[in-house]
Amino acid sequence: MVDHTELIQNEVFLAFASYATIVLSKMMFLSLVTGFYRMTRKAFVNPEDCAVFGKGEEVKKYLWTDNRVERARRAHLNDLENIVPFLGIGLLYSLSGPDLSTALLHFRLFLGARIYHTIAYLIPLPQPNRALAFYIGYGVTLSMAYRLLKSKLYL
Amino acid sequence: MVDHTELIQNEVFLAFASYATIVLSKMMFLSLVTGFYRMTRKAFVNPEDCAVFGKGEEVKKYLWTDNRVERARRAHLNDLENIVPFLGIGLLYSLSGPDLSTALLHFRLFLGARIYHTIAYLIPLPQPNRALAFYIGYGVTLSMAYRLLKSKLYL
Amino acid sequence: MVDHTELIQNEVFLAFASYATIVLSKMMFLSLVTGFYRMTRKAFVNPEDCAVFGKGEEVKKYLWTDNRVERARRAHLNDLENIVPFLGIGLLYSLSGPDLSTALLHFRLFLGARIYHTIAYLIPLPQPNRALAFYIGYGVTLSMAYRLLKSKLYL
Repeated sequence: MVDHTELIQNEVFLAFASYATIVLSKMMFLSLVTGFYRMTRKAFVNPEDCAVFGKGEEVKKYLWTDNRVERARRAHLNDLENIVPFLGIGLLYSLSGPDLSTALLHFRLFLGARIYHTIAYLIPLPQPNRALAFYIGYGVTLSMAYRLLKSKLYL
Repeated sequence: MVDHTELIQNEVFLAFASYATIVLSKMMFLSLVTGFYRMTRKAFVNPEDCAVFGKGEEVKKYLWTDNRVERARRAHLNDLENIVPFLGIGLLYSLSGPDLSTALLHFRLFLGARIYHTIAYLIPLPQPNRALAFYIGYGVTLSMAYRLLKSKLYL
Repeated sequence: MVDHTELIQNEVFLAFASYATIVLSKMMFLSLVTGFYRMTRKAFVNPEDCAVFGKGEEVKKYLWTDNRVERARRAHLNDLENIVPFLGIGLLYSLSGPDLSTALLHFRLFLGARIYHTIAYLIPLPQPNRALAFYIGYGVTLSMAYRLLKSKLYL
């Protein structure tokens, strides 16, 4: 067995690990937001979920889609769609030996943009706040993809 | 070229690779469940998918949402929302040099919780079965995130 | 600090990095397609998104679901459901020391299948084009999972 502390001593990789963990925790937080709105607004999609509020026919009035719940769900799906490429491309980018300061700039911008996006979606803020947040995160990921493919393309 | 068998000889990483592969295969299985219910209940969303059952106006009666299909789709989306953080955080956690027995406890609990969640969603089992399964998996991922950030935060 | 250029010098890993980056960029492209159809067909889901087209009651006529938009969204979700397992299993498979030519065959087939799937979904092509594309990608991921578990299972 080999000790792998050396991988975790690579500073760029260490930074990626920290930012990836934080942005994923932020995404997981949206599960709680959806659950919170489902409970407080009594808006469910599965009959078994609202059994505590009533039985039989009574249940039907809790099976509806509420605006707040759907908004949280859309913010969550948008996170998934954008954080998955960030994780995949970011991991490979971190291992491709980039400059520490350039890498940090990418990770910080991405984390900031995704937090901004969630706030803009949940409150909601008027456009183009959410669009701007989306495109900053999108641009960061594309920039990492470009640097990765430019230096290490192998098809 | 360097041989990377040493990474795969790290026992925690090896365990993570096994559990991640199994939990991802379980998630992929839900694609087949959705497809199975779409075919047997003739409930489609794309006109081209039900062309084999009829043509022209006839097609419309197959374009509806069936309860079983939607249930499988929701179980699938919930898997995505929870397995993506597990993969990202779990990979970094595995490389941060945790105790083998602690790591195995995390991976086993997570796999068990997600299998339990899928069963609870598809059958469906009465609540709080599904909620319990969800929060066990959620807690496991947060626990790994906490250990990772505590030992190696680099912002 | 240790230099990790050796990981990026492993040819299979390098190939995985290239294909993963390309397939993720392709997935991200579907965000733009959805946005494009939302703008050109004026079909929105958030009131704040169509404020530029009108105010107050006027906004409601832009809050509807358009066929083209929904099609792009479904293609995107299907990508997520299939690319996440490819990333997770493919990364671990790349590190398990497979044959370069076997690995390249897997990566190329997967990338081709997912591009074919997107085209078949967006145009749309008649079935079984999309189903075929889906099952090729699915089979590639399962084949990598099988090889990984066969050689390195650790539970």
